[in-house]
Amino acid sequence: MVVLDLLGIFVFATSGALVAVRRHFDVFGVLVLAGTTGLGGGFLRDVLIDATPPAALADWRYLLVPVTAGLLTFVFHPVVGRLEPIVTVFDAFGLSLFCVTGALKAVEYGLGPIPAALMGMVTGIGGGMVRDVLSGRPPDVFSGNLYATPALAGAAIAVGLDHLDQPFALVAGAGAGFCLVLRLVAVVLDLRAPLPRGPSSV
Amino acid sequence: MVVLDLLGIFVFATSGALVAVRRHFDVFGVLVLAGTTGLGGGFLRDVLIDATPPAALADWRYLLVPVTAGLLTFVFHPVVGRLEPIVTVFDAFGLSLFCVTGALKAVEYGLGPIPAALMGMVTGIGGGMVRDVLSGRPPDVFSGNLYATPALAGAAIAVGLDHLDQPFALVAGAGAGFCLVLRLVAVVLDLRAPLPRGPSSV
Amino acid sequence: MVVLDLLGIFVFATSGALVAVRRHFDVFGVLVLAGTTGLGGGFLRDVLIDATPPAALADWRYLLVPVTAGLLTFVFHPVVGRLEPIVTVFDAFGLSLFCVTGALKAVEYGLGPIPAALMGMVTGIGGGMVRDVLSGRPPDVFSGNLYATPALAGAAIAVGLDHLDQPFALVAGAGAGFCLVLRLVAVVLDLRAPLPRGPSSV
Repeated sequence: MVVLDLLGIFVFATSGALVAVRRHFDVFGVLVLAGTTGLGGGFLRDVLIDATPPAALADWRYLLVPVTAGLLTFVFHPVVGRLEPIVTVFDAFGLSLFCVTGALKAVEYGLGPIPAALMGMVTGIGGGMVRDVLSGRPPDVFSGNLYATPALAGAAIAVGLDHLDQPFALVAGAGAGFCLVLRLVAVVLDLRAPLPRGPSSV
Repeated sequence: MVVLDLLGIFVFATSGALVAVRRHFDVFGVLVLAGTTGLGGGFLRDVLIDATPPAALADWRYLLVPVTAGLLTFVFHPVVGRLEPIVTVFDAFGLSLFCVTGALKAVEYGLGPIPAALMGMVTGIGGGMVRDVLSGRPPDVFSGNLYATPALAGAAIAVGLDHLDQPFALVAGAGAGFCLVLRLVAVVLDLRAPLPRGPSSV
Repeated sequence: MVVLDLLGIFVFATSGALVAVRRHFDVFGVLVLAGTTGLGGGFLRDVLIDATPPAALADWRYLLVPVTAGLLTFVFHPVVGRLEPIVTVFDAFGLSLFCVTGALKAVEYGLGPIPAALMGMVTGIGGGMVRDVLSGRPPDVFSGNLYATPALAGAAIAVGLDHLDQPFALVAGAGAGFCLVLRLVAVVLDLRAPLPRGPSSV
């Protein structure tokens, strides 16, 4: 379980580090963006559900992983950049995992089903949003690709099954599996969320 | 009381959704900006005064309202855009309400009068600031229109009267009323906060 | 001790107010940027280590200082702008102080050595990052100047000596002193953190 969590952080941290390299941030900026992208979603969730200090501040492995991802990306960024299609697939794994673990942690801290599913989505997409705000661009997740919807759907499925007292393996498997499949289908078919129609006033 | 609170959230969420439509965010971006604009000020306050998890995560109505406002704006944005003068008036109502309820909640959680008034202002203007940061523009509230001052003044009046053990109706009415009148006068007369004088070095 | 803390806040608040004046924010924007730059690092730390409400909301002097710095900068910004080299030196003092006090506060709240050192760095650099996000530019601290490294090094030294049960004067003096010297040397010699090498793939 922890291994999967750390793998998700590693993948998210790599995506943050790539953005930092492309904006010519220095090595420190690369590490900070790696850290905030990898851990930001969980930090946001933990602060909102009052689970502070966040787990990542109590276990040094959670800090070591984004630092490693950031340094590897800083040094080998031409290679990492070429591997980006693979990173996208791993990123879908990370998203699937985070939306489920985030939602279940919120349930554990006493939130109702709807807010818990929302916290699952926040855990999945929050790190990328912090990354985009810190690197001075509008959040990628708003630009039409189907990213938040799979996270919310997976979190909702996990919360629902957990509410019905299903075993953990089914809860996590169904939630993460649905999110993963929906996200990969969206990437392959280039599915996009609807944009506003017609000219916007002003 | 809750009805007024939800109305304020609705109006703020609509303003966030309009900004998202104008930047051509997808339907999800519209919903997220509606949610963060409607609820962001209260989240910021609750995290700072240690009232987590925020009320909005414990009561599903607080989540339903910005979703409704976001979807309505997404579909009917040409109409909503034309109604913007009315939205500005309702927004002044929302600001008046939030600055008072935010300040009184901070008093309830043990803050002194000055920080409590500040938290009232944060509740009123925080959602709009989060909206502007997420949509990649400098916060509107810094650009010269008189927006934060009415919120701070209304919050200070409410905190002061509450400190003098006045009845709730007077506390809330005087605080919100002063904020509302000052904000509407500022809109009508186009009152503006002072800008720095002279050329700025570099 | 409190005097040094307030001095650090004053210097940081002045740097925030200068940025606001140069972007032609109104007087309110100047005050908000002064406040968030002066207090933001401590707020971030306190929220993450669950020390809410932050000290600045419990002691009115912590609020008075950034307001004073903001108003002085708003009125006398041509003079303050010319004094910027001096501000840079004072800013190094503020950074040295904040990284040590931030790290020791995190230790006091039960964090392990590595996360505590990280919280010291966050206390030192967080205010400036919030300032840059609110004023719509990528964080200055990512742009190659050696700023975060001295803060992390100073915090690590303080946490290490504190772990060895050294007296407070030595802990604080060695940590803050190392940070200060390293930062000033970096300013004088224009030392820079390494940038990514080679062309970044898209």
